Amino acid sequence: MTDANKTSPNVVLQKTAVTRDDRARVSGQRGVVLWFTGLSGSGKSTVASAVEQRLNAMGRLTYILDGDNVRHGLNGDLGFSDKDRQENIRRVGHVARLFWDANVITLVSFISPFRAERALARELVGADFVEVFVDAPLELCEKRDVKGLYKKARAGEIPAFTGISSPYEAPENPEIHLKTGEESLEADVEKVLGWLSEKGYIAA
Amino acid sequence: MTDANKTSPNVVLQKTAVTRDDRARVSGQRGVVLWFTGLSGSGKSTVASAVEQRLNAMGRLTYILDGDNVRHGLNGDLGFSDKDRQENIRRVGHVARLFWDANVITLVSFISPFRAERALARELVGADFVEVFVDAPLELCEKRDVKGLYKKARAGEIPAFTGISSPYEAPENPEIHLKTGEESLEADVEKVLGWLSEKGYIAA
Repeated sequence: MTDANKTSPNVVLQKTAVTRDDRARVSGQRGVVLWFTGLSGSGKSTVASAVEQRLNAMGRLTYILDGDNVRHGLNGDLGFSDKDRQENIRRVGHVARLFWDANVITLVSFISPFRAERALARELVGADFVEVFVDAPLELCEKRDVKGLYKKARAGEIPAFTGISSPYEAPENPEIHLKTGEESLEADVEKVLGWLSEKGYIAA
Repeated sequence: MTDANKTSPNVVLQKTAVTRDDRARVSGQRGVVLWFTGLSGSGKSTVASAVEQRLNAMGRLTYILDGDNVRHGLNGDLGFSDKDRQENIRRVGHVARLFWDANVITLVSFISPFRAERALARELVGADFVEVFVDAPLELCEKRDVKGLYKKARAGEIPAFTGISSPYEAPENPEIHLKTGEESLEADVEKVLGWLSEKGYIAA
């Protein structure tokens, strides 16, 4: 090997990294984080999934972060103590920020019952954080009990279950407020898409 | 409110989620994880950044996961003990998998010195995991010492520094082997792009 500096131009530090704007030119969209919060059974995943389908059909690149792909993977080491729940949301907030930075339209679907944890997520993500309050009455969620969790919670089999034995702190000023107990799915999807369009994240 | 089941179609579970294939139709690309491993100063970030620039110019959606955006954020709670290093790579592996699932061309740049941790990352990501060995002699990395870390490590100021006081376990069968001490940056970038093209991740 001869002089290292001549034969190794690649270990010279470069400051010409691909920027968020460069990535936006490729994807034709800006990142945004739609953070769906609400009781178990309120319809978070259903609305998020329906919104994603519409966005996908419009040619927008999307990704959903939820219990299915995060709780069993990245956060598989976490339980449901207050401390672990906070760590869960802290990590999800950071991952959402990375996806935002990659200009993916990111839909996050977690109960996220505490104002403090949502405030942290908002702080991590920054200006493009959109709190979507999926608001259904507890009685309705419990009556439906799609996953049978409320029954278990009432029987004391699930400790600290949101709405039963642990509080849900409703958002005070969510960007989007969906009343899923009163509105149709289609209406709620239109509300979210309308908001994204109004704010310039997607074409009208 | 009238009958909840009629007014709340949105809390009916749907199994029509947007799939990875749906997202691929939008982005026009399949996800792949290029995992750059090598000594500090071997050129991992430089090569990754140069590859990303070329891919971006080709209209491909990319994202780099590295110490800058992960160590200070998601993994800001982790130090450099063996246990924390393993947890660092475990989380990065999971996040890389999420980006892969979103069909982003994902470039990961961490020293990741241990075979076991890279094997775990490979397991997490699956078939589209590409180990890129950024191979430069220790003497060269130490001679350059761009960040002054080797000097500190030799002085005992950094415990368990890879190559000095902690081993670097070289990949045995990396998909891509870059000899950054001998090859030009351009040649190494071409090697990576050629591989991606050959495997059908990007157009030739």
